[in-house]
Amino acid sequence: MSANTFGKLFTLTTFGESHGSAIGGVIDGCPPNISLDLEEIQRQLDRRKPGQSKIVTQRKESDSLEFLSGMVHGVTTGAPIGFIIRNENQKSKDYDHLQEAFRPNHADFTYQKKYGIRDVSGGGRSSARETACRVVAGAIAQQVLKDISIHAFVSQVGTIALEKPYQELDFDQIEENLVRCPDIETAIRMEQYIQEIKKQGDTVGGVITCVVKNVPIGLGEPIYQKLHAQLANAIMSINAVKGFEYGDGFASAAKKGSEHNDLFLADGTTKTNHSGGIQGGISNGMDIYFRVAFKPVATILQKQPSINQSGEEIILEGKGRHDPCVVPRAVPIVEAMTAMVLLDAYLWNKIY
Amino acid sequence: MSANTFGKLFTLTTFGESHGSAIGGVIDGCPPNISLDLEEIQRQLDRRKPGQSKIVTQRKESDSLEFLSGMVHGVTTGAPIGFIIRNENQKSKDYDHLQEAFRPNHADFTYQKKYGIRDVSGGGRSSARETACRVVAGAIAQQVLKDISIHAFVSQVGTIALEKPYQELDFDQIEENLVRCPDIETAIRMEQYIQEIKKQGDTVGGVITCVVKNVPIGLGEPIYQKLHAQLANAIMSINAVKGFEYGDGFASAAKKGSEHNDLFLADGTTKTNHSGGIQGGISNGMDIYFRVAFKPVATILQKQPSINQSGEEIILEGKGRHDPCVVPRAVPIVEAMTAMVLLDAYLWNKIY
Amino acid sequence: MSANTFGKLFTLTTFGESHGSAIGGVIDGCPPNISLDLEEIQRQLDRRKPGQSKIVTQRKESDSLEFLSGMVHGVTTGAPIGFIIRNENQKSKDYDHLQEAFRPNHADFTYQKKYGIRDVSGGGRSSARETACRVVAGAIAQQVLKDISIHAFVSQVGTIALEKPYQELDFDQIEENLVRCPDIETAIRMEQYIQEIKKQGDTVGGVITCVVKNVPIGLGEPIYQKLHAQLANAIMSINAVKGFEYGDGFASAAKKGSEHNDLFLADGTTKTNHSGGIQGGISNGMDIYFRVAFKPVATILQKQPSINQSGEEIILEGKGRHDPCVVPRAVPIVEAMTAMVLLDAYLWNKIY
Amino acid sequence: MSANTFGKLFTLTTFGESHGSAIGGVIDGCPPNISLDLEEIQRQLDRRKPGQSKIVTQRKESDSLEFLSGMVHGVTTGAPIGFIIRNENQKSKDYDHLQEAFRPNHADFTYQKKYGIRDVSGGGRSSARETACRVVAGAIAQQVLKDISIHAFVSQVGTIALEKPYQELDFDQIEENLVRCPDIETAIRMEQYIQEIKKQGDTVGGVITCVVKNVPIGLGEPIYQKLHAQLANAIMSINAVKGFEYGDGFASAAKKGSEHNDLFLADGTTKTNHSGGIQGGISNGMDIYFRVAFKPVATILQKQPSINQSGEEIILEGKGRHDPCVVPRAVPIVEAMTAMVLLDAYLWNKIY
Repeated sequence: MSANTFGKLFTLTTFGESHGSAIGGVIDGCPPNISLDLEEIQRQLDRRKPGQSKIVTQRKESDSLEFLSGMVHGVTTGAPIGFIIRNENQKSKDYDHLQEAFRPNHADFTYQKKYGIRDVSGGGRSSARETACRVVAGAIAQQVLKDISIHAFVSQVGTIALEKPYQELDFDQIEENLVRCPDIETAIRMEQYIQEIKKQGDTVGGVITCVVKNVPIGLGEPIYQKLHAQLANAIMSINAVKGFEYGDGFASAAKKGSEHNDLFLADGTTKTNHSGGIQGGISNGMDIYFRVAFKPVATILQKQPSINQSGEEIILEGKGRHDPCVVPRAVPIVEAMTAMVLLDAYLWNKIY
Repeated sequence: MSANTFGKLFTLTTFGESHGSAIGGVIDGCPPNISLDLEEIQRQLDRRKPGQSKIVTQRKESDSLEFLSGMVHGVTTGAPIGFIIRNENQKSKDYDHLQEAFRPNHADFTYQKKYGIRDVSGGGRSSARETACRVVAGAIAQQVLKDISIHAFVSQVGTIALEKPYQELDFDQIEENLVRCPDIETAIRMEQYIQEIKKQGDTVGGVITCVVKNVPIGLGEPIYQKLHAQLANAIMSINAVKGFEYGDGFASAAKKGSEHNDLFLADGTTKTNHSGGIQGGISNGMDIYFRVAFKPVATILQKQPSINQSGEEIILEGKGRHDPCVVPRAVPIVEAMTAMVLLDAYLWNKIY
Repeated sequence: MSANTFGKLFTLTTFGESHGSAIGGVIDGCPPNISLDLEEIQRQLDRRKPGQSKIVTQRKESDSLEFLSGMVHGVTTGAPIGFIIRNENQKSKDYDHLQEAFRPNHADFTYQKKYGIRDVSGGGRSSARETACRVVAGAIAQQVLKDISIHAFVSQVGTIALEKPYQELDFDQIEENLVRCPDIETAIRMEQYIQEIKKQGDTVGGVITCVVKNVPIGLGEPIYQKLHAQLANAIMSINAVKGFEYGDGFASAAKKGSEHNDLFLADGTTKTNHSGGIQGGISNGMDIYFRVAFKPVATILQKQPSINQSGEEIILEGKGRHDPCVVPRAVPIVEAMTAMVLLDAYLWNKIY
Repeated sequence: MSANTFGKLFTLTTFGESHGSAIGGVIDGCPPNISLDLEEIQRQLDRRKPGQSKIVTQRKESDSLEFLSGMVHGVTTGAPIGFIIRNENQKSKDYDHLQEAFRPNHADFTYQKKYGIRDVSGGGRSSARETACRVVAGAIAQQVLKDISIHAFVSQVGTIALEKPYQELDFDQIEENLVRCPDIETAIRMEQYIQEIKKQGDTVGGVITCVVKNVPIGLGEPIYQKLHAQLANAIMSINAVKGFEYGDGFASAAKKGSEHNDLFLADGTTKTNHSGGIQGGISNGMDIYFRVAFKPVATILQKQPSINQSGEEIILEGKGRHDPCVVPRAVPIVEAMTAMVLLDAYLWNKIY
């Protein structure tokens, strides 16, 4: 029941701080006899990597993945898969001035109050660096679930929103721009906006949409492990996430039943899919789609008043290397968490 | 790891179908030496009860609660608290015509496909009747957490939304109207709208807002048991919920860091509370607030085309006793799930 | 993670005190579409029932089982199975003199110290009455695992031990005598000894042996859910158990590897089975067999010095209705726990 | 619910194979602000290390421990503690002849049948090398539980048994001989016997006794997390263990209640301690003591007939570096598992 373990049958346990010697994890419950494409896993890590483009943090990490166990010649054995990623580009000096400071909207205050101690450098355990481990496990889960396709993309940056329904988008375009928005025109506007925000020393929030196709019928366990509740839990655990909705989401609140009901076709599919592919907590075979709200990054390169551990008022200088907008790098993280939830549900469903 | 168990240290395991002989549950992990107000628990149940007003389902259930264990003269002993609520007003005949039918936006299809069998009457296990058990456990959790106040209320019905910030509302007004909206003028409009929808044989969705005051600092466990992720999981497990956001939620996506950051006051509180009382997954002592989207009830009293288990096209007659809008009765359920999450986090935090 | 829940995928959550209104439980994870023989479940309960013969406690309980959910016409649906057994023959007055007393080798002292409160009557939650719920769940597990046969029997009462290897015993004889020992001559001596002990107002311990045949290869999960570790955990959770050994058990400590190794036959079975059917925590298809030590019942009908909650010395009068020897009634409990462990492992193994 | 995770609140998740690049683990739930003595942890590892004396396997491993996270200047922060131990002295060639072979009393057959694949070298995941990780976590748990003393020692090797009650032993003598038996005369006989067995190319079993002093009252959670059931589960998960008994154990089966009952003294302690420090699954403050049976090591340096994966009969040559008797090196492992169980129970008990 480790709080640093995700999942029930397919599990990921992570460790590591932003500026420690390494981060890493243990994946357990991976089915045996899966021939893993290790380069593909590294590719997924590279999508999340800092320093990958001009609109993300300039911290340089190769994020080289070392697997330590659980495979024979790249084939899984059913044994736990241990892995580490050494940290390389820690600049802990950037944090010297923060030893005593509480930064607004960071976890400094709450970690200090909860544990009575905290690892200041780079945000320690609360840093989003931990999510690299999720990408590793998610990439493996995706390789187990070969037939399911998971596509996340940026659908909003600040006030710039992509309004097209996902059915009209070409997911092949997602990786073709720095923002990871499949609509090229919107992507350009988003990228320009992020550049502008960056120049202001400010940050901005955004929204990621995720679409899952080819989900088998039957995933999800009533009552307290409904598929969408598991997805919400997984997605909300990602740093900076403030909201989750699936299917019509908040818009369904304004609708009538006669508008919202998805009528069946003879083959068991439905004409519409307001429901988002899940009924009673169980997948019905239609596309699962959901939206995720991210707050603006808390670290801004502007002076901010704050307090220190002694309760004294201080002025924070914005330093360090940070993302002006987190959503481009969060796309593979959303996909990873989704893959893990689906594999967990898939394994559970094999019991029947 | 029962899928019908909620919680980690304070747990609720439920059983029972809508038209079976009884529903019930087992509460484990309740601290000993708590003198429970059993009438207050029944009062909470009555807030969720069918037949309580003209705008909810007319199924008549007394929902009389029988406790079977875990107390000596009303004082908890640390032993599990078993309870049952007998079903009284089952009209399973209402479901005779549905033996083979799949109703749109219900769990008929997914349960049948997953389990190869289903309890048709009243929706069986997928019925929201199960949530009565949650109200019992939540009411107990609330009595343990005496100092924390949890107030949920209806903030939207269909297109009618309450726009005032929660700080301007009088929570004492919540129970003063059938809709459970603390703004009397809005409440009247909502009630009229629900009546209208009901006459049309239709249903409508809505939003519930929940505000938690007086939360101790330190609740929530990084990384995979962040307090807001646990809340999302809990709330999304309630029937008909489609979305969850806390703090500024989806609105934060459009904001800049310089707007969204909550600056500290010298006492460790913050000037604003865009964050919604949680940083890094740990409560910071400020109000926790979140919004929950509910879809319109799937059962409408209109004819709808559908299919049966043989894949034949049929016409569904809308029958039975159903809510035109689920949010008024869902208010105590949202509060109950919130109380359970907070008690679970509170107990876990005692480890340190 | 309720401490009153047993199992991981097939789970039993129990509640209820010895002299409360009812005991009961919730079984979750039972596969759907199992047509249960409810009379057979009651028959198993009757094997554990008090008052069944002259050598057990004379408390009279019909132990009538009421199922509340989880089935349609006796067929499981995959939903949780709730059940209760009303207590009928509580004589709480028998415990009036014990309100403040700590009985030796009972849980009075430890419950009081741990919880600061306890349910005195009948031992409250610590009573072996709880095990009736295990027999219900175990009987269901056994019906799911139709092909596996589980036979427990009494192999020692006090100093009278059955020395024959289990292969020479006729398990059909187990239910043919009050002691549940398959060797009739030994059974008679055991019964006489129990009668004698009872006349002395004393009690005596014993040993139960359990043999499981027809176990599929592959049950059990390395490293921390090895099949024998799960069995040990399950069996040690039964009231009064003090020891567990499987295969050659403690005798293997005195052996050499060349004596103890079980050599393979060409079909993958082994010539001998010192190992007890499990290698590396995984069943190998050979018989699983283990022995369980039970201490003598703590309540004796003799005067004993003791103390009360205030630390004052008192003299305890032996009162109430108690078993002179617990093993005859514990046979179905050992079988039940075994069946639950095996079903849990069986379901887990379906993941691969 | 990873099968490679031990514990509920204080957890250890391990990974790694005998001849892989590294073994390691993640410890979660360690209380913050504990100043760890890292050299002491290495010292405990050295007690388990291969090659430490002439009576154990001659594989040479420095077992150098690298901590990767969870501390600031050696002080725990509440974050998970990741660690690895690189393997150095793999001689996988020793296993070339076993690629297809099933060795008797090893996990070769069961792993192959369960997973359809296995890591042959050094026994892969089923090797006792994994237990090094347990020693790390146990050493940390012991440092958290400063006041509790845990002493395990060898009490039997083959037919040579130490008969003295533990109260008459000097635990300071345990580390003074290669066998780890606190009675010097018996230790010498045991050592000679192991040498003799080794010359025969054979192996032998043994027994470890463990005594825990200064346990607080109240550890352990009824009904399914009784302290002794947790201990049994933990200890039985150690490689080669075949039996567990606590207090009077199997000997209690032969006793009468009037002999076995531990009468109270006025201070709540008991005159005798047949019970072994636990009543109703909860520690009562008296010494906890238990005995653990180990089978003889399966690998013998003698020719043995066996089969291969194709079911063909083969002759196994005994090769490789193996322990003639496992108990001397298992002493720190038994202590480690005990420390982890107690810390887990200690943390849980803080909830009340």
